[in-house]
Amino acid sequence: MTASPGEFELIESIRRRIPSHPLVELGIGDDAACLAPGDPGRLVTTDMLLEGVHFLIPPATPRQVAFKAINVNLSDIAAMGGTPTAAFVSIAWPRSRGSAFQNEFCRGLEEACSLFHVSLAGGDTNSWDSRLVVSVTVLGRLEGPPWKRSGAQPGDWIFVTGSLGGSLAGHHLDFIPRVRESQELRRSVSPTSMIDVSDGFTADLYHLLEESRVGAIVHEETIPVAPAAHESRDSKTPLEHALGDGEDFELLFTVSPTDGEQLLRSPPFETPLSHVGEITSEPTAILRRKTGKDIPLPRLGWTHRLISD
Amino acid sequence: MTASPGEFELIESIRRRIPSHPLVELGIGDDAACLAPGDPGRLVTTDMLLEGVHFLIPPATPRQVAFKAINVNLSDIAAMGGTPTAAFVSIAWPRSRGSAFQNEFCRGLEEACSLFHVSLAGGDTNSWDSRLVVSVTVLGRLEGPPWKRSGAQPGDWIFVTGSLGGSLAGHHLDFIPRVRESQELRRSVSPTSMIDVSDGFTADLYHLLEESRVGAIVHEETIPVAPAAHESRDSKTPLEHALGDGEDFELLFTVSPTDGEQLLRSPPFETPLSHVGEITSEPTAILRRKTGKDIPLPRLGWTHRLISD
Repeated sequence: MTASPGEFELIESIRRRIPSHPLVELGIGDDAACLAPGDPGRLVTTDMLLEGVHFLIPPATPRQVAFKAINVNLSDIAAMGGTPTAAFVSIAWPRSRGSAFQNEFCRGLEEACSLFHVSLAGGDTNSWDSRLVVSVTVLGRLEGPPWKRSGAQPGDWIFVTGSLGGSLAGHHLDFIPRVRESQELRRSVSPTSMIDVSDGFTADLYHLLEESRVGAIVHEETIPVAPAAHESRDSKTPLEHALGDGEDFELLFTVSPTDGEQLLRSPPFETPLSHVGEITSEPTAILRRKTGKDIPLPRLGWTHRLISD
Repeated sequence: MTASPGEFELIESIRRRIPSHPLVELGIGDDAACLAPGDPGRLVTTDMLLEGVHFLIPPATPRQVAFKAINVNLSDIAAMGGTPTAAFVSIAWPRSRGSAFQNEFCRGLEEACSLFHVSLAGGDTNSWDSRLVVSVTVLGRLEGPPWKRSGAQPGDWIFVTGSLGGSLAGHHLDFIPRVRESQELRRSVSPTSMIDVSDGFTADLYHLLEESRVGAIVHEETIPVAPAAHESRDSKTPLEHALGDGEDFELLFTVSPTDGEQLLRSPPFETPLSHVGEITSEPTAILRRKTGKDIPLPRLGWTHRLISD
């Protein structure tokens, strides 16, 4: 909550533009934000986005980068079963970018926050002669137990929202985090574990299996391959993109078979929901091909060829 | 709470080294940290430090940078009258730095947190081919009302802890944030406003005066000039350094005259405490020179010559 000389004007401009929010007793303008007494939330997540690593401008616009910086954090809160409440944003501005860039970026932050009624409650800005850095921290409230990666039980069914693969074609900038879907799941079933798909379906499923000390069988025919996964002009198949690409920001979770049947019978939201496999007690992960053949679920990420057909 | 491929090992190494903390129900290893039910704190502050802007390595060591990254945030929580509880750290590592650098840095984070029993509860790490970036968010608990910048009243006395000026000679890396002093003040008096001295005594006093819509008289003879302010070899006087230099990280605050007398009669801690002036109703700030002459308190920061003697 400090600023380099000359940046007070930008902070003032942000401060004037941000609507008051019942959660925030003191926002920008003191040494720390002070949230209202009560339950500001006990979930906390933080993600840093780096120009040249997580995005390039162009093709991304400042508004898209701001959206992504907020939304990757909202996706983390959703994956814990929480409701995001307040965001704190620290920015290193490249000196080469002008005030129009900064204004477009700040408008993007405000729009992303307003979509889920998240308060933009504080931050820190600096300028430097290197690339854009955005670090966002988001708090979230829980209406029940947190959904950990470590709770999957043998016999549980594995589900994933939406579709997978090809995110780098644009989805990684424009995705809407699955905040509403997470809230609807909370109302209808009791997920035993959950993670958001950021490193890639396979990599994130392995995180979940390792934390839960279990294995899985995944059925190729049920994997929801995104249209964008078919459009890539590289040598990988659409299935390889769906399993290996990162940044889908879908929810990958497990439920009891009873809850699984309930989800298939009456889906709690319109977003596609796919039952892609089951948890097993042996700590190995198997991909059951459409041919009926079982192979080890390829471990490696999107930089490697996953499956030899 | 995501990581680029290849960084899981570092996260695992940090995770293994961090002691469990009663405040943290789930720490590193899920999509978000989950703090224990109860009161994780409603103060939130965030500060981003940039290599080449806020520090250079060398002369600063990785451990010193880690200390500073935590401590600037603890100073903000102290200035709100809070007790820091949990820290979240996002880092962009320069690829040119090796694992020894990372380990020394991470040890510094842990040491700084442990000094005030702050839980290092989560974060995000990335590598890139640019300079080191560290963004820290700290939560803090309040045992009473937050101490805002906006509460100073005409007639209040102005105090500052410690001494001022010359911080760039080393203090800006090695300072101990005034967390204990803030807690002792909470127990003995009721500050009407507070700010930490990060932009410089004069600049931060002006922030406080503007937020409170009041003015001040500051007495030159009472300004606690730090020894380091005498050692600079530039053309500025020690007083100019004390009034203008940034990054002292002392507490600058106001109290009622009754509380002020109480502080002078029985100081609540051994750290020096100076009564440097009074709040006035006219919205101007005056420096009363040792000669008895009143001049406008110089507004400009450390890059400008403040006072013509």
